Amino acid sequence: MAGNTFGQAFRVTTFGESHGAALGCIIDGVPAGLTIDEEFLQKEMDRRKPGTTGNAAVTARKEDDKAEILSGVFEGKSTGTPVAIIIRNTNQISKDYSNIMDKFRPGHADFTFFQKYGIRDYRGGGRSSGRETCARVAAGAIAKLFLKEKGITIRAYTKKALGIESNPDNYIEDNIEANFFRCPDMDAAKKMEKAVEELAAKGDSAGGIIECVVKGLPAGLGETVFDKADALLAHGILSIGAVKGIEFGAGFEAADLYGSQNNDPMTAGGKFLSNNAGGILGGMTNGNDLVFRAAVKPVPSIYQKQQTVNTNLEPVEIEIKGRHDVCLCPRIVPVVEAMTAITIADLFIRNEGARL
Amino acid sequence: MAGNTFGQAFRVTTFGESHGAALGCIIDGVPAGLTIDEEFLQKEMDRRKPGTTGNAAVTARKEDDKAEILSGVFEGKSTGTPVAIIIRNTNQISKDYSNIMDKFRPGHADFTFFQKYGIRDYRGGGRSSGRETCARVAAGAIAKLFLKEKGITIRAYTKKALGIESNPDNYIEDNIEANFFRCPDMDAAKKMEKAVEELAAKGDSAGGIIECVVKGLPAGLGETVFDKADALLAHGILSIGAVKGIEFGAGFEAADLYGSQNNDPMTAGGKFLSNNAGGILGGMTNGNDLVFRAAVKPVPSIYQKQQTVNTNLEPVEIEIKGRHDVCLCPRIVPVVEAMTAITIADLFIRNEGARL
Amino acid sequence: MAGNTFGQAFRVTTFGESHGAALGCIIDGVPAGLTIDEEFLQKEMDRRKPGTTGNAAVTARKEDDKAEILSGVFEGKSTGTPVAIIIRNTNQISKDYSNIMDKFRPGHADFTFFQKYGIRDYRGGGRSSGRETCARVAAGAIAKLFLKEKGITIRAYTKKALGIESNPDNYIEDNIEANFFRCPDMDAAKKMEKAVEELAAKGDSAGGIIECVVKGLPAGLGETVFDKADALLAHGILSIGAVKGIEFGAGFEAADLYGSQNNDPMTAGGKFLSNNAGGILGGMTNGNDLVFRAAVKPVPSIYQKQQTVNTNLEPVEIEIKGRHDVCLCPRIVPVVEAMTAITIADLFIRNEGARL
Amino acid sequence: MAGNTFGQAFRVTTFGESHGAALGCIIDGVPAGLTIDEEFLQKEMDRRKPGTTGNAAVTARKEDDKAEILSGVFEGKSTGTPVAIIIRNTNQISKDYSNIMDKFRPGHADFTFFQKYGIRDYRGGGRSSGRETCARVAAGAIAKLFLKEKGITIRAYTKKALGIESNPDNYIEDNIEANFFRCPDMDAAKKMEKAVEELAAKGDSAGGIIECVVKGLPAGLGETVFDKADALLAHGILSIGAVKGIEFGAGFEAADLYGSQNNDPMTAGGKFLSNNAGGILGGMTNGNDLVFRAAVKPVPSIYQKQQTVNTNLEPVEIEIKGRHDVCLCPRIVPVVEAMTAITIADLFIRNEGARL
Repeated sequence: MAGNTFGQAFRVTTFGESHGAALGCIIDGVPAGLTIDEEFLQKEMDRRKPGTTGNAAVTARKEDDKAEILSGVFEGKSTGTPVAIIIRNTNQISKDYSNIMDKFRPGHADFTFFQKYGIRDYRGGGRSSGRETCARVAAGAIAKLFLKEKGITIRAYTKKALGIESNPDNYIEDNIEANFFRCPDMDAAKKMEKAVEELAAKGDSAGGIIECVVKGLPAGLGETVFDKADALLAHGILSIGAVKGIEFGAGFEAADLYGSQNNDPMTAGGKFLSNNAGGILGGMTNGNDLVFRAAVKPVPSIYQKQQTVNTNLEPVEIEIKGRHDVCLCPRIVPVVEAMTAITIADLFIRNEGARL
Repeated sequence: MAGNTFGQAFRVTTFGESHGAALGCIIDGVPAGLTIDEEFLQKEMDRRKPGTTGNAAVTARKEDDKAEILSGVFEGKSTGTPVAIIIRNTNQISKDYSNIMDKFRPGHADFTFFQKYGIRDYRGGGRSSGRETCARVAAGAIAKLFLKEKGITIRAYTKKALGIESNPDNYIEDNIEANFFRCPDMDAAKKMEKAVEELAAKGDSAGGIIECVVKGLPAGLGETVFDKADALLAHGILSIGAVKGIEFGAGFEAADLYGSQNNDPMTAGGKFLSNNAGGILGGMTNGNDLVFRAAVKPVPSIYQKQQTVNTNLEPVEIEIKGRHDVCLCPRIVPVVEAMTAITIADLFIRNEGARL
Repeated sequence: MAGNTFGQAFRVTTFGESHGAALGCIIDGVPAGLTIDEEFLQKEMDRRKPGTTGNAAVTARKEDDKAEILSGVFEGKSTGTPVAIIIRNTNQISKDYSNIMDKFRPGHADFTFFQKYGIRDYRGGGRSSGRETCARVAAGAIAKLFLKEKGITIRAYTKKALGIESNPDNYIEDNIEANFFRCPDMDAAKKMEKAVEELAAKGDSAGGIIECVVKGLPAGLGETVFDKADALLAHGILSIGAVKGIEFGAGFEAADLYGSQNNDPMTAGGKFLSNNAGGILGGMTNGNDLVFRAAVKPVPSIYQKQQTVNTNLEPVEIEIKGRHDVCLCPRIVPVVEAMTAITIADLFIRNEGARL
Repeated sequence: MAGNTFGQAFRVTTFGESHGAALGCIIDGVPAGLTIDEEFLQKEMDRRKPGTTGNAAVTARKEDDKAEILSGVFEGKSTGTPVAIIIRNTNQISKDYSNIMDKFRPGHADFTFFQKYGIRDYRGGGRSSGRETCARVAAGAIAKLFLKEKGITIRAYTKKALGIESNPDNYIEDNIEANFFRCPDMDAAKKMEKAVEELAAKGDSAGGIIECVVKGLPAGLGETVFDKADALLAHGILSIGAVKGIEFGAGFEAADLYGSQNNDPMTAGGKFLSNNAGGILGGMTNGNDLVFRAAVKPVPSIYQKQQTVNTNLEPVEIEIKGRHDVCLCPRIVPVVEAMTAITIADLFIRNEGARL
C-alpha cells in the first residue's frame, strides 16, 4: 500500500529512481497567491547536488538537477492547484553493473527491496537511492517560500562528522554554506575536511550528526496525540535514507537529568529561560526555537571487500566500484531542512481550523 | 485538522481525557477471523496501570482500567468490522485545582494547549495526560493478537533509569515483569528502586531509556520512501508523551563508526552477522531482530517550587500537589510495545498487495 | 483495509453492529470553542428512531438511542480534542434467528458480507444494519452545530414515496416534521400514509426519493478535482444503506436539456437567475442553494416467500419474520442531513488554508 | 486542503492545467511485477482525444497527448514504486482571451474558482478544464492492466445523447468504438450524429447519459460503511467535470418499485436471477455485473450571447469563441472507464487483508 505521500494539508507525493527518466513531486495544498521564486527553487536544488570542491566527501557524479515546474503557477503566483516539479536524470551513462547485478550490497536496501517486491533494480539503488531526495528538496523549497511569508526560518548544519564535533561557541551562521561540511564552526570544518581525505584514501566512510533549528514559530503548532510536531518531524526525518536516530532538545541526555533540571521555567510574556524541551511541549510548539538532531550512519558503499549474499542467498564477496560519498552529512543538510519545512508548513495549515 | 488517528490499514483512532467520562479507541482494519482474547486485553491494560508495589516511582492513583469491547467481535472472533473499546474513568474524585487552575505547569502541555485552542482544561492534563495512553494499550493488545498469529513478538523494557544502566549480559526476559522498573537485569533493577526512593524524598523526578525488540519479522515490511518502517515507528513512539528521542540499531553511535564497522555482513540464507542496522535496511525489515531505543524525559510534575506564568502570561510561582510518578519508564514500557505492535500490524497488512 | 472513517478535516469514524453492545463515533477536528448543545444532539437522535405514530411504514422496535458524550467537551464547549459519542443497544431481546441463520436474505448484505469476511453475523444485519446510521446522526448533529455558527442550514425531506410525489407548490417547511413521511406537502403526505398501510397489508415494501437543500453556503467550498463538493456528497450519501442514486440540480434531466437552457445566467452581485447547477460549479459551491436528490430502494425485508441460497449456496426458500419498515424514506431523511452536514463541515474547514 | 488524490491502496494523484506546461499523475501502489503495456496506455490516451471524424460533437483542438512514463517501471514491469506519467501540452497557441479575461463563463468553474482562490486563470479553464481528465485516463490505463490480470473488464458507452436513446436490444459491443458517439446501438448512433450537426449549427449544446458495466468481479469488494463500492464509484464519477448524477442498477427507478420486484432472487451457486442491485449489496460486489449510469450535462460553452458578471460582479454579456464540444458523452466514456478502473483496482487491493 502506497507510502510515497507525506503530509495532509501541505501534501507531497514523490516519484523517481536513480536511473529512471526523471524524479519529481506533486505538492498539493500550496495556498493560492504565494509568489513562487524559481531562482530560489533552483538554488535549493543546487545545494543538494554533489559539491564541486574536489573533496572526496561526496560523489563527483555530475548531476544537472534542473527543476522544472509543470503546473500550479500562473503569472508567478501559486493558483491553489497542485504544483508539480520534475527533475530529469541527465547523466545515466550506461554503466557496467555486472559486479553487483546479482549481489546485495551490505548496508543498502538491495536485499530488502528484493525480498519485498521480488524485483532487483540493480541500477544504483533505484527508488532507495539518495537521489530520491532531490524531489524532497524541490518540495521543501516551496514549503520554505510559504514559511518565509509567516516569518519562519529553518537552518540545519553538520554538528559532528568523523568524530569531530562543532563547538557551539564558534557558531557563525555564515560559515555553514562556506565550507564543504556545512559546519558552522570553521575550525571543526577544517578538521573534518582533513579527516575525510585520510578516510577516503582507506576506502572507508563515516557518519555524523546534523542539527536543525527552526525560528519564528508561533506557539500551538502540532496536534495533541499522534500527530505531535515532534512525532511528525521524526517521521519525516527518519524517512531520509541514512538517518538512524532523532532527538529533540536535551534528547537522550534528558534521560539522565532530574525533572528540576530538565523543566524549562517560564517568565513574563510566556518566554522560556532554557530550552531542554527543544521548543515542543505535549507535541505542540511553545514559541521557543525548535531544535533537533539526527544521527547519520556511515555511507554503506565502501571500497573494501565485503561479505554478502547473492540473489540465491548464497555467500559471496562483493567489491563496490564507482565514485561514492564518504560522509553524507553535508548533502543531507538540505534534505533535513526540506523535510522540516514540509512538516512545519503542513502543521501550520492544519492549524488554521483549530478554533471556531 | 484531525490528528487522533494512527495507521492506514490497521487504523487506530483514540479519544478521551484524563478526567472525562471515558477513554477509548476504534480499531479499523482488524482482519476477520482473529480470536479476540479478552483476558489478554485486560492483562495488557493492567500492565499499564500504576503499580501496587507501594514504590514511589509511579503514582498511586487507583485506576480500574476495565476495557470493554463494544463492537467488531462475534462469538469470540473479529468480524472484519471496527473493534471499539472503552475504558471508563472511575476515579475522578472532585479535586482542588485552585493552585494550578490559571497557571501553566512547567514541562507540561498546559501552555501550548491553551495557545492552540484557547481552552484551559486544568483537570490533570486533559487530552495531554499520560492517561491517554490506555487507549493505545487497548489497541496494541489487539495488534499483538494479530501479530502472534504471524509469529511476531514484541518486548520492551527499561534499559536505563536514574542514570543506572541495565547490563545486557545480565538480560533475563523473565525479570522484566518481575521488578518494578521492568528492567531485565535484576541487579540494575534493585539499584533503580533504591535510587528512586531517595529521589522521591527530594520531591524530584528522573528519566531513562527504553529498549524494544521485535522478533519473528519477515523481510520486506515497510515502504520505500516516506513510510519506512523506522519512520513510522519513530512517528508512533515520539507521539508518546514524555519521549524525546529514538534511535535504531547502532543509532547515534553509528555517527561515530566507519562504514566498514557499521555495515552488517550477510551470510548463507540471508542471515546477518551483526545488527547495527537494527533490523531495517532502506526502511524495510531485513529479517533480523528490529531494535530501537527511546529516550524518556523526567516527569515534569515535581514537588519543588517552580517559576512559571499564569494565563495572562504574568510570572508566578507554582507548587504542584497530589501524587505523581517519579520515573515514567516502567509505565511507558507497555505503551512502547503497543505503538510498536500497531505500527507493525499496519505494515504487515499494507504489505499484502505489494506484488501482483 | 479500513473504511469506517469519513472526512479529512472534520473526520468521523464510526463503529457498532445492530446487536452488539453499543454503536458510536469519534469526531476528530471539531474546532475548539463550539457550544455543544446536548439537547439538540438527543433531539436529532430521536428523529432517527422508529416513529411512534403506530404507522406501519417504520419498524416498531423500541430503541432508546440515548447519546452519551464521552470526551472532547469541557464546561459545555468543545476543547479541540476528539468528541466521542456512544449509543447503547438496550433492546437486544434474545431472538429466534433459526429461520435465517444459514440463509442469505435477498436484497441484504448477508451474502456479500459472508463472501468478504467468511463470517455470518446473522443477528439483524450486523454492521450492515440500518441501525449503523445512528452513529452518523450523532456526528451529524455536531456538524450541524458547527454549521449553524457559520449561518448554514440543511433540510431534507421525502420528495416521493410509493409513487406519490410531493408538489413543490405545496411546500411548507413546517410540514416536514409534522407528518409521518417527512413530506413538505401535506396532501401528498396523507396519500403516502394511506398507500403504505395497504402495502403493509400485502407484506410488501416501497422506495422513494429524498431531496436535500443546503442554504447559507459561501461560494468556493469544495476542491477542484477529486474532492469536488458534489463528489464528496455523492460518496457520503451513497454510503447510506438503501440509497441507489444521487443527482444534483437538474440532474438526470440535464441530460435532455440544451446548454442554452441548462446554463444558469448570472446577474449583479454574482446572483444566479436559475439553479440547474444545484449550487455547484466545477465542484465548488457557487453561493446558490445546494440541491440534490437521492433514490431510496424498497426495504428488502418483505413478508413474502422469497427464493435464495443458504451458506452452502444451495437454493432455499426464505420467509422473514419480525417487524420491519415498509418504506425507509422518513427514517433516512435525518441520515441524509447528517451526511450532508458532515461533508459540508469538512469542506468548510478544509477551505480555511486555501489562500495565503 | 489537498484534494488531488484519489484512492487509498491504488492511489492516484494528478496535476496540470489546460494551458500549463504539462499534465500528469503519480500512481502509488501499483503491485510489483505487472507488465506495463505502453502501447495500451497510449491507445487509451488516444481514445480520450478529440475525434478526427470532422464531426462537430467534439472540439477540433489538436492534442498530441503523448504519455511518457517517468518512473516505476524496469524492464517492462512495475517495480512496486510509484509510476509517474506526464503528458506535455503541445498546443498552447497564444490566444486572444480578451473577450472572457475578466468575465465568468456561465456553467463553468470560472466564478467559483475565483471565489475560492482569488485567482482568475482565464486560459481555457485552467485546472477545471476537461483537459485535466487526460491524467485520469493515464492512471486508468494502468489500473485496467492490473484488473485484466484479475479477469475484470470495464466497458462504458453512451446510452443516451441529445434525447436519443440507445436500444439495449441492439447492443453490439463492437459498435462502441466504431461510431462517433461511442453508442453500442448503430441506429441510435446515426440519429445522434445527425442531431448533433443540427445543434452545432444553432450554436447550442446537449447532454446525455453514459452507462458503465464491470464484468468478472469477485464477490466481496467494497467496504461495509463509508467506503462502499457504490459510494467510492459515485465519488470518482461525480468528480468528473460535467457529471451531475449517478445511479446503480435500477437506480432512480427503484424508488417506484416494490420490494417484491426489486429484490434480486438468488439461485444455486450464488447466482442472481435479476440485477436491480447493479451488482452491489450493502456496498460490496455480489459477483453479478456491476452496472451504473451517469448523467452528463450539456457543454456550458455555447455560441450564443449569455448574461453573466465580470470580476467586479457587474452584469455583462459574454460571447464565447473558439471551437468547443457540442456533446461531451463520447469523450467522457473513457474517463468514466478510467475512474471505474482506478476505484475497482483500489478496492481489490484494499480487500487483500480482509481476512486473517
